[in-house]
Amino acid sequence: MKMDETCPGKVEPILEILDSKWMLLVLFELFNGTKRFGELRRKLQSISPKTLTDRLRLLEEKGIVTRTIYPGVPLHVEYDLTESGKALQPIFSAMWTWTQEHGAYLQN
Amino acid sequence: MKMDETCPGKVEPILEILDSKWMLLVLFELFNGTKRFGELRRKLQSISPKTLTDRLRLLEEKGIVTRTIYPGVPLHVEYDLTESGKALQPIFSAMWTWTQEHGAYLQN
Repeated sequence: MKMDETCPGKVEPILEILDSKWMLLVLFELFNGTKRFGELRRKLQSISPKTLTDRLRLLEEKGIVTRTIYPGVPLHVEYDLTESGKALQPIFSAMWTWTQEHGAYLQN
Repeated sequence: MKMDETCPGKVEPILEILDSKWMLLVLFELFNGTKRFGELRRKLQSISPKTLTDRLRLLEEKGIVTRTIYPGVPLHVEYDLTESGKALQPIFSAMWTWTQEHGAYLQN
């Protein structure tokens, strides 16, 4: 990999997405599989419904998440990662590896 | 790699750092080598000096960046990554790879 002078600009679109508050934790939950809105809310206990809606809408606009509505009473809505969303996983793996190796120091 | 239910909590310390506005771009500049404060400001054109100072101080507190003061008139201060900071590079590599493969779609 060559990260040249022009790279930061190129990486900006993904930075803009990942940089939103809560976004990494929302994505993290979706790596573990399809989730309903209510499930995501329960997992991310202190997120507001508005913030969660905003984040999911952005992910949908960016082609990272699909939103599927299932008929029934009440309707239910499921969120899942697209191929592009699943391809974010190595970014998370790298963060996880770093945390295991250097995270203890961070707590100091 | 196994990302179990407890993982998000463990990854939080690094998320908290990377999630700050400008942080990824500041780190990105330091991957390219030692930088003076003024150089970082020039590279990150629209960052405020206060924000840049805050980010560098946080990175220093977390053991990711070293701050070295060189005597002289005027004094000059250089910032460099620690080993822990350099170990963040795979996270950036993964973001770069993702951007090359899926970034074009994001622009739509």
